[in-house]
Amino acid sequence: MPINELTNQPINYILHLADDALIMSQRLSEWTGHGPVLEQDIALTNIALDFLGQSRMWYQYAASMMGDGATEDSLAMLRLEHEFKNHLLVELPNAMPSGRDWAFTVCKVFFFSAYQHALMQQLQHNADEEVRGIAAKSLKEVTYHLRWSREWILRLGDGTAESHQRMQQALTACWPFTGELFEVTTYAHGWVDYAAIKTEWMNEVLHTTTTATLDVPTTAAFQTGGLHGRHTEHLGYLLAEMQYLQRAYPNSEW
Amino acid sequence: MPINELTNQPINYILHLADDALIMSQRLSEWTGHGPVLEQDIALTNIALDFLGQSRMWYQYAASMMGDGATEDSLAMLRLEHEFKNHLLVELPNAMPSGRDWAFTVCKVFFFSAYQHALMQQLQHNADEEVRGIAAKSLKEVTYHLRWSREWILRLGDGTAESHQRMQQALTACWPFTGELFEVTTYAHGWVDYAAIKTEWMNEVLHTTTTATLDVPTTAAFQTGGLHGRHTEHLGYLLAEMQYLQRAYPNSEW
Repeated sequence: MPINELTNQPINYILHLADDALIMSQRLSEWTGHGPVLEQDIALTNIALDFLGQSRMWYQYAASMMGDGATEDSLAMLRLEHEFKNHLLVELPNAMPSGRDWAFTVCKVFFFSAYQHALMQQLQHNADEEVRGIAAKSLKEVTYHLRWSREWILRLGDGTAESHQRMQQALTACWPFTGELFEVTTYAHGWVDYAAIKTEWMNEVLHTTTTATLDVPTTAAFQTGGLHGRHTEHLGYLLAEMQYLQRAYPNSEW
Repeated sequence: MPINELTNQPINYILHLADDALIMSQRLSEWTGHGPVLEQDIALTNIALDFLGQSRMWYQYAASMMGDGATEDSLAMLRLEHEFKNHLLVELPNAMPSGRDWAFTVCKVFFFSAYQHALMQQLQHNADEEVRGIAAKSLKEVTYHLRWSREWILRLGDGTAESHQRMQQALTACWPFTGELFEVTTYAHGWVDYAAIKTEWMNEVLHTTTTATLDVPTTAAFQTGGLHGRHTEHLGYLLAEMQYLQRAYPNSEW
């Protein structure tokens, strides 16, 4: 167990928020140039860019708290797999077990955005002015991500027989990774009310899936570990690719 | 164009041989644990290990020629994409455009082994004692790789309708990358008789494919660039994954 997990230093929570956004961004960016239609290719690329922007704000704030030469780049590009505190959901590939699947991707964005929407609503009233600012700015983007992904869930779930079947399959595959969204780690204590987030998330998910004629699995066996640095096999490959430039050319800057 | 390509220093040719073996090894090792049956999983893993052994011998020799702190590890793990001189064929994924396909993989091994078999037969009589030794040792392994892959080409090509169709598809997809096997770069001048290698290769390929009831494409539009450091998009991802440990933990050793 990493030492810093045992503490409730604010830095760990900020890094957790930054990692979620960064890994979400990196994964979604794999779609760039491969979207089903040009408009949606651009939409998803813009969403990936939103997440990159969010991660930069959190990393910059984290770096300023840490001092000691830390920068947004060193935190994103030089930390190791077990130091990342993102949810497992965001590191999952865009299809299971690999490849690109549109239904699986929009399902990931939907589950995560519904969570982030409830989260940022609370964080925008945080005692820390910097956190308030980043949360308020993020919330505008997240509201759009939620609407965009909700519309896709509805369109595919309540669409043709095939689109319904594939959307249901994606939802079922994603589901075991949603329970971790409400796990309260030591370093997350006192930041937000996770029970309230879960209630809002569940309302959103049940309403949308019911309208989309989709079934939510009843399993309560959820995957965890990401918040403690114990990740799926997918994160290592993602980091190897994402961090290659900085590791091959140390200290390089734009 | 990398400067060292313009010279015919032996080091470039040795690195070219080393890179072919290393990239072949890394790519085939992706099958480990995923083979269609246990025996073939082990066979392919052993072939990957043979290639790794070959690459080590060439890199060790190259490092001794270079001096200046070069080691087999620094040459394999710290060179950049444009410095690698392997054929494009060996860096191709195990299926096109991605994933794992048994027919495509055995086709890659067959085309490359038929080339290597003719190559090592010549190199085992090279003027350089070290080269002679490595080539003779490699030839024993290559002879087995060629037999193993030839048997798969025959079994699948002359098998069921589906296996024939998939083998033909793999062969057609691999074919544009075979012409580069006989390209004579500046640094390859004088090492072997490439025309003779091509004749032997063509005999092997035509005999085997005819027996397997497969058609060899008539196209003469071949992909090139690898020998000059201009690679497909696939090599960068392969190196990012392969070199991550050494780049994340510089100078680490077993």
